Amino acid sequence: MTAKIARFLDDVQPATPCLVVDLDVVRQNYLDIRHWLPVAEVFYAVKANPAPEIVALLTGLGSNFDVASPGEIDLCLAAGASADRISFGNTIKKQRDIAYAYSKGVTLYAFDSEAELEKLAESAPGARVFCRILMTCDGAEWPLSRKFGCEVDMARDLLVRARDLGLDPYGVSFHVGSQQTDLSQWDIAVGKTAMLFTALAEAGIELRMVNLGGGLPTKYRTDIPAMERYADAIMTAMTDHFGNNIPTMIIEPGRGMVGNSGILEAEVVLISRKSYDDEVRWVYLDVGKFGGLAETMDEAIKYRIETPYQNDETGPVALAGPTCDSADIMYEKCGYHMPLSLKVGDKVRILSTGAYTSSYSAVNFNGFAPLKTYFV
Amino acid sequence: MTAKIARFLDDVQPATPCLVVDLDVVRQNYLDIRHWLPVAEVFYAVKANPAPEIVALLTGLGSNFDVASPGEIDLCLAAGASADRISFGNTIKKQRDIAYAYSKGVTLYAFDSEAELEKLAESAPGARVFCRILMTCDGAEWPLSRKFGCEVDMARDLLVRARDLGLDPYGVSFHVGSQQTDLSQWDIAVGKTAMLFTALAEAGIELRMVNLGGGLPTKYRTDIPAMERYADAIMTAMTDHFGNNIPTMIIEPGRGMVGNSGILEAEVVLISRKSYDDEVRWVYLDVGKFGGLAETMDEAIKYRIETPYQNDETGPVALAGPTCDSADIMYEKCGYHMPLSLKVGDKVRILSTGAYTSSYSAVNFNGFAPLKTYFV
Repeated sequence: MTAKIARFLDDVQPATPCLVVDLDVVRQNYLDIRHWLPVAEVFYAVKANPAPEIVALLTGLGSNFDVASPGEIDLCLAAGASADRISFGNTIKKQRDIAYAYSKGVTLYAFDSEAELEKLAESAPGARVFCRILMTCDGAEWPLSRKFGCEVDMARDLLVRARDLGLDPYGVSFHVGSQQTDLSQWDIAVGKTAMLFTALAEAGIELRMVNLGGGLPTKYRTDIPAMERYADAIMTAMTDHFGNNIPTMIIEPGRGMVGNSGILEAEVVLISRKSYDDEVRWVYLDVGKFGGLAETMDEAIKYRIETPYQNDETGPVALAGPTCDSADIMYEKCGYHMPLSLKVGDKVRILSTGAYTSSYSAVNFNGFAPLKTYFV
Repeated sequence: MTAKIARFLDDVQPATPCLVVDLDVVRQNYLDIRHWLPVAEVFYAVKANPAPEIVALLTGLGSNFDVASPGEIDLCLAAGASADRISFGNTIKKQRDIAYAYSKGVTLYAFDSEAELEKLAESAPGARVFCRILMTCDGAEWPLSRKFGCEVDMARDLLVRARDLGLDPYGVSFHVGSQQTDLSQWDIAVGKTAMLFTALAEAGIELRMVNLGGGLPTKYRTDIPAMERYADAIMTAMTDHFGNNIPTMIIEPGRGMVGNSGILEAEVVLISRKSYDDEVRWVYLDVGKFGGLAETMDEAIKYRIETPYQNDETGPVALAGPTCDSADIMYEKCGYHMPLSLKVGDKVRILSTGAYTSSYSAVNFNGFAPLKTYFV
């Protein structure tokens, strides 16, 4: 909770639910990442929070951008970022979307399959391409599945094929899993990457770039290592595996760039028990899984929640959203407690909600409007 | 797939992804429910698909409406439904939203807790109220949690309290779980309800209404019992437990009203394998969990998917959406197969997607626009 956000909420008393983002925090996060990882090029993962205000701020600071779609390309261009600062990092692109990006001047693309390479060769001839490899992602709170990436031996062959198709085999990317707190994961990933560099060199291809993906965390319910410890883990892995010959490094923070910049204010709509002998109270807020808190899916992201009664005695709660959907429950099993003094109509503040909230919000589910964002 | 939808898709070739709803199917579903359950008042669960076109059609046919929010009340009133045809069926309502509904003439409200009753007594004095009881919902494909309802002994006390607060204790509601295929669940629920009628009569309160909730299914991957079998199970339960003294019956179909009216057309964006020895192909569509297929959460709703190659040999697939989110996977574990001849750029048709799709769609996730709906 920053002073600016607190003042805004107190002064304006906006209708809830709403997200308030402090752009100074985003700026500081960017500067911190640059400070601790000066050799890495920063590509903000726009999907984390695609607000034009954030993209414009980061454009001004000199950031590059990792985008998922033509919509996000347009957003970055509109904010003044030139096309050479954009990486089309989605490995799943329509042919016509690649053509659109190429027509706008985007020359950097991700892939993880032969079919995607063929699309790129046709619609983005000569472009720099990087292959995403599969990681297991132990230790991540929002673990990646097998959806993205391919095994290393396939990646080797695909990078050779990229050259044969007239593309520029630029490098390798991986993602250790969002909200990754096991620092050793970077060593594993960089080690696999370095092996690929060697294998490709044997095929006459000099890769020049390592894309470290995202994974920088934001503080939710449990503590996280400091940014310098991530930077140290990453740089140690790079020097261990690449020695003095360190390639271009790209990092794609999303959550780590904007997560802690936002506070979501919500209202307690109802507090009830289901039977006389229930110890657990059900606390219903005016925001839930379909109004911006999608990452509570399977209780994965555990937000910190502040009430007006921080020092009062607490009891166990199940926390749910306002819709008629029975799946609209944030926390039922992971041990949330809230003050016994909490009452209907109270405001609560959900911390570190700057990433993956407003853009996840449903368009109109149950007749509730999408989450509104204010910038301070 | 109706002839009208097929013709529209062939003639118009709309950009994908898109949902096409055949309003004739909605009309026929309404008439079928009225035909097989003529004694029940139909309250369409607006949240299933809040398109104005659907609400207007059902208003014209004489339907009533179950709403979740002021937004849905406005929608029904704008379509020409008078306020006495609206039930505010969400048990989680803000005080000011109750006041808004009451000011618009809504006189029928759900509750399942004392706190909600107190709000209703203050902002909707004299209104008819019904108490939702907790069900276990065995057999439902989209099971209800403990989020809604209270235990029967608490419901008894709350209905007495409703009278003492100057409200009109009108009846009892339950929900057997969406997409319920175990017909015996209605007997269990109606049995509990009848016990409550008896208990309340002993307290001098004559309840007059049973709200049977939703639960009518639509056909997805597996077959479902015919509507007449549901009607038979419900009427048998009612006469078994209430004899000749059957109270007013309300039914709230959502999925059962609109599910099979819609076809979602999507495009195959990519087909790939993760390693050379993978038998499973990954098939990526331009629609996923955040673009309208939210009910594939935990692979709960298993849609039928038609390709242009219905008679070709098939192989196992994992099916995922187009976003950079690793959770955007529809089916990985429940055994989907698709034709080996399927290729990038092909159109697929996802059947029975008229309910709980367009309104669940995220507002802008990954820069993709919300799901567009056409009506034929």
